[in-house]
Amino acid sequence: MSVNVLSDHLGMSTAILEAKQSRKKGGIPIGSAIVYHGDSAVGPQVLGSGHNQRIQKSSAILHGEIAALDSAGRQKPEAYRNSTIYTTLSPCSMCTGAILLYRIPRVVIGESRNFRGDEDLLRSRGVEVVVLDNNECYELMKEFIETHPEEWNEDIGETVAPPS
Amino acid sequence: MSVNVLSDHLGMSTAILEAKQSRKKGGIPIGSAIVYHGDSAVGPQVLGSGHNQRIQKSSAILHGEIAALDSAGRQKPEAYRNSTIYTTLSPCSMCTGAILLYRIPRVVIGESRNFRGDEDLLRSRGVEVVVLDNNECYELMKEFIETHPEEWNEDIGETVAPPS
Repeated sequence: MSVNVLSDHLGMSTAILEAKQSRKKGGIPIGSAIVYHGDSAVGPQVLGSGHNQRIQKSSAILHGEIAALDSAGRQKPEAYRNSTIYTTLSPCSMCTGAILLYRIPRVVIGESRNFRGDEDLLRSRGVEVVVLDNNECYELMKEFIETHPEEWNEDIGETVAPPS
Repeated sequence: MSVNVLSDHLGMSTAILEAKQSRKKGGIPIGSAIVYHGDSAVGPQVLGSGHNQRIQKSSAILHGEIAALDSAGRQKPEAYRNSTIYTTLSPCSMCTGAILLYRIPRVVIGESRNFRGDEDLLRSRGVEVVVLDNNECYELMKEFIETHPEEWNEDIGETVAPPS
């Protein structure tokens, strides 16, 4: 199998596990993982993984991708450039910016139907963006948005229009 | 005095204090503050402030602006839309993305000479960007970059070219 196939399996299964762990604790079900594939002798390795912590930690910054970067700790700039980041949901502007800051060259997204982030900005700056349209990611997020619209809007900075 | 003048004094002095506190602890001297000015009866209020924590907390995500957002905790989307964010140094792509996520409409930057972030992206999305070219911010950052080039490059995801 190619490096990407192995890395994609490892990365997306870890991200989905993170999303489910978050939901179990009452949180927003978005998970992420960063997989380093710069050492062919060792194969793909998870540098870090995490999930949205808005509800669990009252955090405005710990989206899935930011939590995964946090969990990876301090890395040399070269490590990010040989990694892929996996996320169950299309990355928002903040997470897009973090991917650009660290020049992560490849982003694999579970789904973009419930929310579509700044994918065009990523592509315009040369990042490879793969959208899987994974049904498990879609259903996890759909259930949360339907049952917790207020928390979801808060997470993406959306104000809710008053009913007309 | 106008709301902006009061808010700017409060916000930038808080951001500079944060940057100096970071430097005293051996950290990267970048500070930030978020000032809410949506309540004219009360006047400008600091929602949160923070500084870069790469060295102190081995953090890849706690840039000044992200630390300030973190310190503000969970806020209603409306709060950010009536706030200004202050930062001693031009915001990187990640911090730019965070400002866009929360639709903070105004960014006041201490200086952009040592590092120029994604100011053009902010402006292109309708954010008001004010660059003060404050000499205290400039000197604080210049000293750090000169004495800690490796940590600085790590903070902005830069690889260092091998000597030619």
